[in-house]
Amino acid sequence: MFRRSFAALKVNLNPRVVAAQYAVRGLIPARADVIKKEIAEGKGSHPFDSLVYCNIGNPQSLKQPPLTFFRQVMCLIDNPQMLENKKIVAEFPADVVARAREFLKGIGPTATGAYTNSLGYDFAREIVAKHINERDGNVKPLTTAANITLTDGASSGVRFLMQILIGGPKDGVMIPIPQYPLYTAQIALLDGKAAPYYLREKEGWGVHSQDLEAAYSKCVSEEGATPRLFVAINPGNPTGNVLDRKVMEDVVRFCHDKKLVLLADEVYQENIYAPGKKFVSYREVVLSMPEPYNKTMLISLHSTSKGIIGECGRRGGYFEQVNIPEELREQLVKMCSINLCSNVNGQVMTALMCSPPKKGDASYESYWAEYNGLFDSLKARAELLAKELNTIPGFSCQPVQGAMYAFPNVTLPEKYRQYNEEQNKKEGRQLALDARWALELLESSGIVVVPGSGFGQVDGTWHFRTTILPPMDQMQRMVKAIRSFQENIYKKYN
Amino acid sequence: MFRRSFAALKVNLNPRVVAAQYAVRGLIPARADVIKKEIAEGKGSHPFDSLVYCNIGNPQSLKQPPLTFFRQVMCLIDNPQMLENKKIVAEFPADVVARAREFLKGIGPTATGAYTNSLGYDFAREIVAKHINERDGNVKPLTTAANITLTDGASSGVRFLMQILIGGPKDGVMIPIPQYPLYTAQIALLDGKAAPYYLREKEGWGVHSQDLEAAYSKCVSEEGATPRLFVAINPGNPTGNVLDRKVMEDVVRFCHDKKLVLLADEVYQENIYAPGKKFVSYREVVLSMPEPYNKTMLISLHSTSKGIIGECGRRGGYFEQVNIPEELREQLVKMCSINLCSNVNGQVMTALMCSPPKKGDASYESYWAEYNGLFDSLKARAELLAKELNTIPGFSCQPVQGAMYAFPNVTLPEKYRQYNEEQNKKEGRQLALDARWALELLESSGIVVVPGSGFGQVDGTWHFRTTILPPMDQMQRMVKAIRSFQENIYKKYN
Repeated sequence: MFRRSFAALKVNLNPRVVAAQYAVRGLIPARADVIKKEIAEGKGSHPFDSLVYCNIGNPQSLKQPPLTFFRQVMCLIDNPQMLENKKIVAEFPADVVARAREFLKGIGPTATGAYTNSLGYDFAREIVAKHINERDGNVKPLTTAANITLTDGASSGVRFLMQILIGGPKDGVMIPIPQYPLYTAQIALLDGKAAPYYLREKEGWGVHSQDLEAAYSKCVSEEGATPRLFVAINPGNPTGNVLDRKVMEDVVRFCHDKKLVLLADEVYQENIYAPGKKFVSYREVVLSMPEPYNKTMLISLHSTSKGIIGECGRRGGYFEQVNIPEELREQLVKMCSINLCSNVNGQVMTALMCSPPKKGDASYESYWAEYNGLFDSLKARAELLAKELNTIPGFSCQPVQGAMYAFPNVTLPEKYRQYNEEQNKKEGRQLALDARWALELLESSGIVVVPGSGFGQVDGTWHFRTTILPPMDQMQRMVKAIRSFQENIYKKYN
Repeated sequence: MFRRSFAALKVNLNPRVVAAQYAVRGLIPARADVIKKEIAEGKGSHPFDSLVYCNIGNPQSLKQPPLTFFRQVMCLIDNPQMLENKKIVAEFPADVVARAREFLKGIGPTATGAYTNSLGYDFAREIVAKHINERDGNVKPLTTAANITLTDGASSGVRFLMQILIGGPKDGVMIPIPQYPLYTAQIALLDGKAAPYYLREKEGWGVHSQDLEAAYSKCVSEEGATPRLFVAINPGNPTGNVLDRKVMEDVVRFCHDKKLVLLADEVYQENIYAPGKKFVSYREVVLSMPEPYNKTMLISLHSTSKGIIGECGRRGGYFEQVNIPEELREQLVKMCSINLCSNVNGQVMTALMCSPPKKGDASYESYWAEYNGLFDSLKARAELLAKELNTIPGFSCQPVQGAMYAFPNVTLPEKYRQYNEEQNKKEGRQLALDARWALELLESSGIVVVPGSGFGQVDGTWHFRTTILPPMDQMQRMVKAIRSFQENIYKKYN
């Protein structure tokens, strides 16, 4: 479709909204939903009878079960009358019942029916703060509930912070390329400038200081904008890499020297699979550095949607503030208050994520059995997927060290490029080459991936993002379908 | 506090964010929270030992219980394992269990752990559409799920729509004055122009066509902006009035002729208390009008936070589109997709709100007994409050026909105005006279109300908004405290 002329529209549209893109739920997944509906209604003719959705990190949509303990506590909090019924209480483990009572005490007499305060329940924010301190080896200064804000997923934290710091085209945001498209979408909505720093694919999507300097300078000199915010995604989305401490220290020094707020998207902190790798938080790095770098402004994001918990539907999450000046804190509180509060089930789930059963609790063994089973399965799929993709002609896939995605590099024949240009002319649209590839993959096999152009990539290179989430049988179908599809392209267009 | 100079700040702040105000959780409630904490910690010296929060429509924070049926279904959906346990199932009414199974079937195999599609569960959107058709006497054309979007409360629908239609200072939004401050906050964030139309207080906060025309012309001629959106709040917040069909028809004609999208904030549609008044939706009015007015563009908002359900914490809600052109629909879908989806507990609660137990269901009698008990109690408090406030010196309160608020007009002595100016000088801040009044009321009695200046009012008049939600004993304390406080002002400053 050609973009229709604004003049022909019946309503005035904000051009920044029109410009915003979000590929994770863009063209390919939208087409997939149409096909899914056609299959369900027995319409259309497709050479497959089901789809494999690899476009979005949505574990429980792909048969990953929820962690039992969390759901048990949640249901008692949702309906506290159950706690007054001995027959029902008898059917729950003792620590579930105790935990529900403890949380309800923290919530107060209104249970979960009232708006909370703007930043979220105090009791939940205290649990989050305690968890962060323990995770980071109690590095000083310890954090407190005052630094924690509960949010609807991680996305709303990103939105609040960007909205406060980015007032227009003079304000820039440093983002990794490839990036998670929420960032470019929010920058477009705010009329800010993206200052992309490219990750070095062949070095496992590494970050280099000189690339950061170059990106900053380019934003200033070519865009006339000053970067205000630095986005780091670790573990990487869509890249699956895990940053080393040394690189993180470089980033912190850079942010400090340029007076940037460091926004650390750490939603995959529990998803690290590579041997020898472990999660190091930007908070721990910042606070462990010498003066003045330990004063770097940092906001760290987390979510209930990823990890092993995978409770996307709850829209739970938090952000933590480190070294944030009072004038910015005030605006964050105000933005949250305009939103009234995040949803309480998400708040409760966030508190649960940060306080799993402890040794000696009735649910301790079963919780960790479930957790480790899911973790091991994700790890196995991460390893298998990268390995398999690397055997497909024209594919090169960096190791999936963490997160939930592989982002393979796909070499495509020149003739396929020409074919895409001809098709675009016929169809009156401008599909990028990898979007054409992903669309044809979908139409021929039912596999739903997101083209690399939705995340950003070095010009002339092509990628796609797939999750590692499909169960093993679906993943095998996916790999087989991609292999066959790519081999056909090589046959037909080489 | 003086607003600090931007130059002195450590971070760049978006001036539009700094300009945005949200009085419902502004100065007075923030001070109340400090006092509450001091009381809890035994600090400070306050002439009361508890607060009465009348600043926000948050029923369950003021002892309003949740409706049992909704919570029962919700807990089973949160933890579907319960449905496999016969001992637990036996403790629930049959229709609760059947409803949970039905909803879970609609949700699909992933229960509530996965992101839903961007607009919300299909099954829930179908329930909402059916409910709307029944509510509106099946006026044609019937609505369908395709017109329904599930949201985190009503607020996020407002945000999406405003963001799409308001691109900057050339775009205006017609808002009633007084208004719910979410609207002015969003306009400020988007750098749009507010085009206020004043409600006529002495005519029960009536809307007049000539006032609409004048507001529109003023926006065009004085602000250089074109109104794009018309906000109607019915039943009124903070005014508590209920519009008559004739007035609504005037509004529709006006919106049609000016090519405005009509945004109908109808979150208080179940909260109508005045004899002879009933809820008429803007949808029903639009669709019942002759050509071309039946083609007026309309988006209607609803929420689980108000009504009798009062489930604010769930952040459930929806908006419905009527006559909305495809180009706007597309942008709404995209904005929702950038947000991924609204929270699933809110979605489930919205579906429940639109499908209470039916005659013959096991929970039918008890549900309606609870519902009617709560409704009658709200109605009694609405009547009592307006009556009592009208007996206080200098007060004039329009009837609380609907919603959850009274917005009395308060006449204050000239000497009190002078006193406020002196105080402002001493304190280095600029409190409006009604903000001073509300602050001193809080400090002297623990009663938390919101000054009228947060909602907008005719220059030189003063008001405050109080909810009708405190239980009868607290409401009596509130009325007594306000009376005594106001009498003291009259004594001291007259």
